[in-house]
Amino acid sequence: MERLKGIIGSGKVSTERADLLCYGFDASKIKKPPSAVVWAEDITDVVKLTKFAYENDLPIIPRGAGTSTTGSAVPVDNAIVLSLERMDRILEIDTDNLFVMVEPGVINGRLQKELGIKGFFYPPDPASMDFCTIGGNVAVNAGGPRAIKYGVTGDYVQYLEAVLPDGRVIEAGVRTKKGVVGYDLKSLLVGSEGTLAIITKIGLRILPEPETVITLLAFYSSLRKATETVPRIISQKVIPRTLEFMDRRTIEAIESYNPSGLKDAEAVLLIELDGPVKTVQRETERVVDICNRMGASVEVADDSITQQKIWATRRAISPALYHISPTKINEDIVVPVTGIPDIIEFLEQLSQRYKIPIASFGHAGDGNIHVNIMVDKKDQKQYEKALSMVKEIFQETLKLGGTISGEHGVGLTKADYIDMEIHNNEMDLMKGIKRLFDHKMILNRGKVFP
Amino acid sequence: MERLKGIIGSGKVSTERADLLCYGFDASKIKKPPSAVVWAEDITDVVKLTKFAYENDLPIIPRGAGTSTTGSAVPVDNAIVLSLERMDRILEIDTDNLFVMVEPGVINGRLQKELGIKGFFYPPDPASMDFCTIGGNVAVNAGGPRAIKYGVTGDYVQYLEAVLPDGRVIEAGVRTKKGVVGYDLKSLLVGSEGTLAIITKIGLRILPEPETVITLLAFYSSLRKATETVPRIISQKVIPRTLEFMDRRTIEAIESYNPSGLKDAEAVLLIELDGPVKTVQRETERVVDICNRMGASVEVADDSITQQKIWATRRAISPALYHISPTKINEDIVVPVTGIPDIIEFLEQLSQRYKIPIASFGHAGDGNIHVNIMVDKKDQKQYEKALSMVKEIFQETLKLGGTISGEHGVGLTKADYIDMEIHNNEMDLMKGIKRLFDHKMILNRGKVFP
Repeated sequence: MERLKGIIGSGKVSTERADLLCYGFDASKIKKPPSAVVWAEDITDVVKLTKFAYENDLPIIPRGAGTSTTGSAVPVDNAIVLSLERMDRILEIDTDNLFVMVEPGVINGRLQKELGIKGFFYPPDPASMDFCTIGGNVAVNAGGPRAIKYGVTGDYVQYLEAVLPDGRVIEAGVRTKKGVVGYDLKSLLVGSEGTLAIITKIGLRILPEPETVITLLAFYSSLRKATETVPRIISQKVIPRTLEFMDRRTIEAIESYNPSGLKDAEAVLLIELDGPVKTVQRETERVVDICNRMGASVEVADDSITQQKIWATRRAISPALYHISPTKINEDIVVPVTGIPDIIEFLEQLSQRYKIPIASFGHAGDGNIHVNIMVDKKDQKQYEKALSMVKEIFQETLKLGGTISGEHGVGLTKADYIDMEIHNNEMDLMKGIKRLFDHKMILNRGKVFP
Repeated sequence: MERLKGIIGSGKVSTERADLLCYGFDASKIKKPPSAVVWAEDITDVVKLTKFAYENDLPIIPRGAGTSTTGSAVPVDNAIVLSLERMDRILEIDTDNLFVMVEPGVINGRLQKELGIKGFFYPPDPASMDFCTIGGNVAVNAGGPRAIKYGVTGDYVQYLEAVLPDGRVIEAGVRTKKGVVGYDLKSLLVGSEGTLAIITKIGLRILPEPETVITLLAFYSSLRKATETVPRIISQKVIPRTLEFMDRRTIEAIESYNPSGLKDAEAVLLIELDGPVKTVQRETERVVDICNRMGASVEVADDSITQQKIWATRRAISPALYHISPTKINEDIVVPVTGIPDIIEFLEQLSQRYKIPIASFGHAGDGNIHVNIMVDKKDQKQYEKALSMVKEIFQETLKLGGTISGEHGVGLTKADYIDMEIHNNEMDLMKGIKRLFDHKMILNRGKVFP
């Protein structure tokens, strides 16, 4: 590793124990220290590192802010962690062409703020937006609450610059909204979890901010009534900006962590409508009416301070759940919207059958449910039971026409389950693509594929 | 080919001269008769054909309605044309989940009609929508006027079933809006022009129809003022549903083909706004004001009969241009919206320099301009001059940060230019992907790659 310091510069390479520990885990809490950490400051550093790793057959683990819940950023044996956090420049904000160019280490929330000042926004808003990087968002094709109306990260990526494992640089996509010249390498990189190339520059589409946003909280005394409300709103042709759901256990966790006045409800829907003032007012009336008919009482927040408070609560769900259970298994399944009542009922029954609590919340509007199995990982017997639950949840999800990951990716934790969804013919192609890009299996070794 | 009839069924295979002639060209007008035509009626037929072709090393040319302007559906030596036009069933319209499942041979316009009855719509609307198939749309990632607001075909494809060249069946994508398990094979197939797999089933996202649509025609006495209007509308944060542009030569062609009252203008913008009634009214006022300030007179059409007449005119541009010039070279470049005035001025000067007329029209709102070089292909000397013009147009487009094809694809006619945009490293990957899917180079041989 001393040679690496010589090649890249000593201020950008560390083999200090403290650094190896800090970069030896991500939000999955799986730990494995790397043998070195490199902080790239520009594409030249990335090229130098990949050439070094390629010659020496060393795995590189690219990393943004380490917010992956599936272990996508956890090192393997002899790995060099490549942190992109110093490549954090917003290179260009071109509002006339609704386009921005950023480096991968830019924090999602920072981009949001810069755009907000100009009256524009970048729709994808993962719950971790105040910490997570755009590069990481692209790597897992991150979603967020606004995906129901605005889509996921991949829907906004127009251009990528990336470094292949042998140090060659590629460009994928175009700066314009349309483009169909050759195969779509850009979409292949989006969601590839750092296994194909290291992304060094990202061109994103942006949108003008909507005129107004109204936030509703609907409190239900029946879980089923809450989940049944979701397809009713969509079929009324109202597409909210967000349509989030929390079950009783999630509400209790929030209230014990930081009381937020969510009352004694069995379930809460957090609904946001955006657009021109008059349209939003009319849609609000329609949604309140639908919720009321389903037995809910509704609170309306149209000022930004109350809205920010509500969203701080929503984003605190994950820490709140850790507060009541130090370890948990967190899955992010997706089912068609009409399948939500069924999957939620299935989860209730599963929890009762295994006698292990499940807390569910998430993006009900697009069918993306965060299922949290509240299990103590140190209790081996309980943990194994929980893994059986995971398998049953995935089976039911696929039976309903869904997918086992909506926005977290496969990483380490879902690699053993990937063949439940991806069958042999498709897997052969994916492995072929991996070999084509990275025949030495250097990039993010051990991830995605079992 | 007699064996093929035995395998697939004689009613589905033809080697008749008339059929070979009919299936021996597409809208590019390039001609090359195949050695047989197969009309698949279901996936079993497609599998049987691919296995036969694979064993016998015969190229398959998949084909929808043959509306490709780049020769994507033109046969090569010994080719079997596989027509998907009989696989034309709409399998499922699931409005609750905003999802439809169709076979590749479904005509775009027919799907639009079926959805319209239920109050929903499928945004991508190529000018050829009354003839072109959804399968063909997916193969070239087709756009259309509404792309400015709603995006292109690939933005709506959620799921694909496809047959690999050796007869294996794959599924790509998911039925839900989110999904990030493994590499995005679906996006790799979109825009691959039938060179990787034969698409047999397509799952598409749909949207509720907007409450109202208003159509504006803005008449300009200056071409530059028209093109300068485009970025001004976008920067006012109005995103029209369509923002189409026609230059004087295009207008003259329409008027001589089928007089449509487009007046004696130097340029026309066709602008459509959609959404809730009050919003559209307000946006209409804003857009009319912007156009007026740029010196245009504006006509507003808010009834559907006038709107249909206007769109019939817009869709008749291509036949109208053929009426004034029996052959032409038609390119579909894209530049960033702010680059439109520059590229249009460049085209004017180029036309004067070469003394060959150019008619330009298209999707100004997303920078996608259809450039028509009005040249008689039989005049060899003139034709070669026109090819030099094409090269200059592509150079200028790329210099402005654009792409050489927005929605027509590469096919045969742009294969020789692809390396102007796609460089060696990216091309190596694309060719590697082609070999991975189709190592015998059976599918749509001769297309995309030079």
